[in-house]
Amino acid sequence: MDLLNPVDIVKLLIALGVLLAGARLLGEIALFFRLPSIFGEILAGILLGPTVLGAVAPDISMALFPKSGIGAQLLDGITTLSIVMFLLVAGLEADISTMWRQGKAVVAIGFSGILFPSLIGFLMAWYFPGLLGRHPGADPLIFSLFIATALSISALPVIARTLMDLDLYHTDLGMMVVASAIFNDLAGWITFAVILGLMGTGGHGFPLGWTIGLTFGFTLVMLTVFRRLFDKILPWVQAHTSWPGGQLGLVLSLTLFGAAFTEWIGVHAIFGSFMVGIAVGDTPHFRERLRVTIDQFVSFFFAPIFFASIGLKLNFAASFDFLLVLLVLIIACFGKVLGCSLGARIGGMSKRESWAIGFGMNARGAMEIILGLLALRYALISEELFVALVIMAVVTSLISAPLMQNVLRLKKSRRFIDFLSTKGFVKLAAGDRKSAIVEMVDAIGDINGLRTEKIIAAVMKRERLMPTGMGHEVALPHARLEGLSTPVVVLGIAPGGIDFKGPDSFPARLIFLILTPTDDNGAQVEILADIARTFRDRDFRKAALSTHGMTEFLALVRSKEEQ
Amino acid sequence: MDLLNPVDIVKLLIALGVLLAGARLLGEIALFFRLPSIFGEILAGILLGPTVLGAVAPDISMALFPKSGIGAQLLDGITTLSIVMFLLVAGLEADISTMWRQGKAVVAIGFSGILFPSLIGFLMAWYFPGLLGRHPGADPLIFSLFIATALSISALPVIARTLMDLDLYHTDLGMMVVASAIFNDLAGWITFAVILGLMGTGGHGFPLGWTIGLTFGFTLVMLTVFRRLFDKILPWVQAHTSWPGGQLGLVLSLTLFGAAFTEWIGVHAIFGSFMVGIAVGDTPHFRERLRVTIDQFVSFFFAPIFFASIGLKLNFAASFDFLLVLLVLIIACFGKVLGCSLGARIGGMSKRESWAIGFGMNARGAMEIILGLLALRYALISEELFVALVIMAVVTSLISAPLMQNVLRLKKSRRFIDFLSTKGFVKLAAGDRKSAIVEMVDAIGDINGLRTEKIIAAVMKRERLMPTGMGHEVALPHARLEGLSTPVVVLGIAPGGIDFKGPDSFPARLIFLILTPTDDNGAQVEILADIARTFRDRDFRKAALSTHGMTEFLALVRSKEEQ
Repeated sequence: MDLLNPVDIVKLLIALGVLLAGARLLGEIALFFRLPSIFGEILAGILLGPTVLGAVAPDISMALFPKSGIGAQLLDGITTLSIVMFLLVAGLEADISTMWRQGKAVVAIGFSGILFPSLIGFLMAWYFPGLLGRHPGADPLIFSLFIATALSISALPVIARTLMDLDLYHTDLGMMVVASAIFNDLAGWITFAVILGLMGTGGHGFPLGWTIGLTFGFTLVMLTVFRRLFDKILPWVQAHTSWPGGQLGLVLSLTLFGAAFTEWIGVHAIFGSFMVGIAVGDTPHFRERLRVTIDQFVSFFFAPIFFASIGLKLNFAASFDFLLVLLVLIIACFGKVLGCSLGARIGGMSKRESWAIGFGMNARGAMEIILGLLALRYALISEELFVALVIMAVVTSLISAPLMQNVLRLKKSRRFIDFLSTKGFVKLAAGDRKSAIVEMVDAIGDINGLRTEKIIAAVMKRERLMPTGMGHEVALPHARLEGLSTPVVVLGIAPGGIDFKGPDSFPARLIFLILTPTDDNGAQVEILADIARTFRDRDFRKAALSTHGMTEFLALVRSKEEQ
Repeated sequence: MDLLNPVDIVKLLIALGVLLAGARLLGEIALFFRLPSIFGEILAGILLGPTVLGAVAPDISMALFPKSGIGAQLLDGITTLSIVMFLLVAGLEADISTMWRQGKAVVAIGFSGILFPSLIGFLMAWYFPGLLGRHPGADPLIFSLFIATALSISALPVIARTLMDLDLYHTDLGMMVVASAIFNDLAGWITFAVILGLMGTGGHGFPLGWTIGLTFGFTLVMLTVFRRLFDKILPWVQAHTSWPGGQLGLVLSLTLFGAAFTEWIGVHAIFGSFMVGIAVGDTPHFRERLRVTIDQFVSFFFAPIFFASIGLKLNFAASFDFLLVLLVLIIACFGKVLGCSLGARIGGMSKRESWAIGFGMNARGAMEIILGLLALRYALISEELFVALVIMAVVTSLISAPLMQNVLRLKKSRRFIDFLSTKGFVKLAAGDRKSAIVEMVDAIGDINGLRTEKIIAAVMKRERLMPTGMGHEVALPHARLEGLSTPVVVLGIAPGGIDFKGPDSFPARLIFLILTPTDDNGAQVEILADIARTFRDRDFRKAALSTHGMTEFLALVRSKEEQ
């Protein structure tokens, strides 16, 4: 047997480890700045690849990520497997029954949101191919079709996250945007599959007509026969096999077969896994817990490795062309925002909502980048255009939320944990209200020049007005303070309980001191409501009471949020 | 860049898909016969590899699983990654603090359970190397050490599952067995790492002393410094990064680095990932939910692919040597059972318990097979011996549970779902007790020649004695019937509720008719208790009420079990 020698194995494991660690680290930093993690992941690859590490220490970069030989091929095999898995998850998230339920507005937004940017992209690419960086050997028609597609696909995961961040996900507007994005994704991918077929990129060497026919046939069978089949088979599998092994094994092996099939007919493997994802994700019998398992493993293992590997492929600095970036960005935004807003207006939405939909749908992400990567691989576009597409995806994602917020005049409600300082975790020795408040104020000391005595006086004044025991063992002493620049929250834990005169006559064990600026009306209400909501559950309060410091406490609250 | 061409990608995806689908399918069939799924997975590989498919249709087998070229190397890379992941999970499960808590009996069982089989194995291999299938070129000392190790490692996952099946897992005896198996695993792996070092199998070509020194150093650092470090770092990661992405990324990248390190120093990559698993798994801050995610994805994706790939490597039929199999089996069982029982007696256990521990610890599994595979790869053992080791692992696992059951005189308590027939799901039209019972008995018709009238009379007689409403919307009408060969359970669903005179005066909506043979005293009690326990939860009852047939109902009950 041709087996790997230990040196190859060591290199492969280190390469994967470095990619994963780098991508997750920068992904987390991106999340900290409220950016989608994919941007951090791509940046990690740029740092590790020819752009930075390759320029500074070419030997190390080459040893880690070789460009030829078995090392390069192994990495290519594993990143291919990773992207196949990622597209499965993308497909699972694209719930097409949601799409149908939203009715005609979705069709209007979807069509107009594809037609407009496609048309602009196609015409630009057709008449100014040099400006847009067409690869010298590329076919003009295929290149123009690619540009049209690349400019018209929205990024469903980015859009969904933006909507969640803005608390819009479950609103009518949010569902409309999501449904339109699903329509968009589906249409875009089918078009792209056809383009790949047109290019005759490989596979079994089918004639063009066959490739396109098989692509449509496969799509149709997946969306009809297989969708219904899964609806029947999955409950049976659930009932008669081990859980979740039966469903997981079935779905993952079908994903591999679907991917192999589409690769074989000459469109890329990812199209097959995306379609399997759509067909499976639509049945209610695919249990949520299993979806979460696949999603988590793929999002935090396969996806980071894939997205980081992109940066290894080219030198982003050398291929950065400012004018091209600007051009791509402008036509991308122009076409998409206008197209979708127009569609929304036609579908009967208000003017304000139509703009919000346009800005929401304008976010691009993983899909543009994956398309671009394939186009680069098959020598359709220049490296400069690829870099411009990546930057366009980043920028459109970044501006989507603020623009929506602005046009809808939204304010995101704040979480109390954002205002807890590390010093603000106090195991209370006090036995009464006053001394508890004094202890908590003392713990953080003076703030913005405000003396502790003054703060205590303000809180006690409020307390005398009406006690702040909320029942359920929680008390929320609070005050508004002039001169404070940002809210401050202090947590006091009193296992023995302190009487804050709550309505249920139980003593308070979790006491949150909340100080807010006088000129910020919303802060106090939002933080109070957030705490009350968070600690409604008895078991959770018990867990919170047994934490030993701010780190543990934050860990607990966050793990609850995410579940 | 050296990239894969589409044909390579298609082949890789199909190979992985076939391995996964075959392994999962036969794994499920194994589970159906109450065998560990790993045996089905290995069997799938034997069917797909040279033993069966290769003999029947060599072209197909070769095309799917090539023995040379890029295809073979890609598969080797991915199976290596798979086994690294599998050993991480094995390490996560080996909770060494459990081991310490059990005290001196564990040390006695562990030591004696390693010493005895090792000694017997070593002496046999030293004096009769030909009999045991030493590879012509292999060093006698290393070969003897390998046999000693291979015969002394217990299979923690198999043992844990056996104990769970017998409801012994949470008993003192069960924890003792688990703790001893962990001790066993740990000692066995360290020994094996040293043997690999002795063999100078590759890596960076360190001198022997260095390899062994580094192995012990790595083990020590993982079990002390890293264990404590994780205990501090994981809550911090949990508090300050996205969940579960932060912890997952950290653990998986450290696994890859640990694996690379041990491969580099000349012991196999799996030792590193096993040690990372142990160091991480021991902290309470590694959340259960994350452990489950990793476990599920690895158990149902990576592990099946790895175990199926074993069968591709050699012809099991051609390498089957009956005498060798028998010999290995006898010395393996003899050494292990006696060694562990003796240790348990020394540790102060009763005679009956000591035998039970011996039989429990005798189960082998994945670890023996993985060790054997490495030994085969490094030309230490013959193919015949490898086959004998695989069969030994299978047989010892199979006889473990029945032998323990026998010596402890246990009877496994039965589940009600095992006695539900497909006809036994009735949406009741009835409004009162009597007609409900008639409807349910009619649904299944005569059983074992017992007429429905007779059954109804028996159930009603019992019902008149004392109504069988259990409260919580559940009623359990039942009767013992002479001439019945096996228990029969029928489920009646009455959304409107039927008065079975339950203690809480709520009408019953879930009605289980339970018929048991008169000569089976335990059955009725076990089934009644099982149903009461299963439907205690209100939301779960609601979910059960809304199922539409037996398949859906079974799916629901099973998904609850597994969670």
